[in-house]
Amino acid sequence: MHILVALVTMLALLLYMVMVIQTGGARQRYKVEAPATTGNLDFERQFRIQANTLENLIVFIPALWIFALFSANDHLAAGIGLVWVIGRVMYMLGYARAAQARGPGFALAGLAQVVLVLGGLGFVVWRGVTMGF
Amino acid sequence: MHILVALVTMLALLLYMVMVIQTGGARQRYKVEAPATTGNLDFERQFRIQANTLENLIVFIPALWIFALFSANDHLAAGIGLVWVIGRVMYMLGYARAAQARGPGFALAGLAQVVLVLGGLGFVVWRGVTMGF
Amino acid sequence: MHILVALVTMLALLLYMVMVIQTGGARQRYKVEAPATTGNLDFERQFRIQANTLENLIVFIPALWIFALFSANDHLAAGIGLVWVIGRVMYMLGYARAAQARGPGFALAGLAQVVLVLGGLGFVVWRGVTMGF
Repeated sequence: MHILVALVTMLALLLYMVMVIQTGGARQRYKVEAPATTGNLDFERQFRIQANTLENLIVFIPALWIFALFSANDHLAAGIGLVWVIGRVMYMLGYARAAQARGPGFALAGLAQVVLVLGGLGFVVWRGVTMGF
Repeated sequence: MHILVALVTMLALLLYMVMVIQTGGARQRYKVEAPATTGNLDFERQFRIQANTLENLIVFIPALWIFALFSANDHLAAGIGLVWVIGRVMYMLGYARAAQARGPGFALAGLAQVVLVLGGLGFVVWRGVTMGF
Repeated sequence: MHILVALVTMLALLLYMVMVIQTGGARQRYKVEAPATTGNLDFERQFRIQANTLENLIVFIPALWIFALFSANDHLAAGIGLVWVIGRVMYMLGYARAAQARGPGFALAGLAQVVLVLGGLGFVVWRGVTMGF
C-alpha cells in the first residue's frame, strides 16, 4: 500500500497548503490587491516561498513515487522524502525572515530531491537493463 | 481501474488547459509581450486564474488519488473531485469578470480540496494504525 | 512496471531541473535579487522557460500515466511523451535565444500534450462505456 510514502506525500501537500494560506494572509496584511503579486517585499518573499516550493513539488512527488516503486524500498523513499519536507520547513521559516536566510533549507531539500531523481532514474534503468525495456 | 477518478482528473486537466489557452489569447489581445506577465490588469487577472489553479492542481491531483486509493471508495473521491472542478469553473468565470468575484468558486474548490487532503491523510493514518506502517 | 513511461517521466523531470538551475544561474548573472522575478529581460526569459514548462508538466505527467494505464500501450505513451520532451528542449533553446524563437518547440510539445490529454480521456471514457463506470 506504500503507506509511508503516501504519508510523506500528504505532509508535503499540507506544508504547501500552509504556505498558500500564509500568502493569502500576507496579501491582506501588506495590502497587495489581486491580481498583483508584487509591490511589497514582505509579500513577495512570502509569495516566492510558495512559488518556489511549487516548482519543486512538481519534481518531488513523481520522483518520490517512482523511486519507491522501482527501488521496492518504501522506508528508504519515505525517509528521503521526510528530509525534503524538513528542508522545505527550514526554507519557509528562513525565507520569511530574510531572503539570504533561505539557503540551508533550500540546499537540504535540494539534496534530497537530487537523490530521489537520480536514484529513481537509476532504479528505472536498472529494471530496464535486467528485465528488458 | 479507478475510471471515475481518472475521468475527474482528465476534466481538471482539460479545464486547466482552457485557462492556459485563454492566457495565451489575452497576451495577444492586450499586447503583453513575452516574457512579461504584467502591465495590463485584464491580462493579469487571466494570468492569475491559471497560476492560482496550477497552485491548487499540484495538491488536488495527488490528494484525489491518495484519497481514492486509501478510502477504497472511488465514487466518493470522484464526487468530491467533481465539486473541485465545478468550484474552479466558477472561480474562472468570476475572476475573469472582476477580482472581487473570484471568492465563491475559490471557496467551493478550497473546501473540496481540504476534504481530500485531510480525509486522505486520515485514511492513510488509519491504514497505518490498523495494518502497521 | 511501465519502465518506459517511468523513464520518460524522469527525463522530463531532469529537463525541468536543468531549467530551474539555469534560472538560479541567470538570477546571479543578471543580478536579479530574490524575491524579485523581473527587472532584466534575459533573466525573465529564462524564468518563463521554467515557469511555462511547470504549467505544462502539471498536465503532462498525469495525462501521460493515465494514457499509459488506460490504453495499456506503454510504448505508444512513452513515444508521445518523448516527443513532448524533445519539443520542450527545443522550446528551452529557442526561448533562451529570443522570445520569438520559442514557437516551434512550444507547438511540438503542445501537440504531444493534446494527444495525451484527449487520447487519455478517450481511453478512460471507452473503459467506462465498455466496462461500466
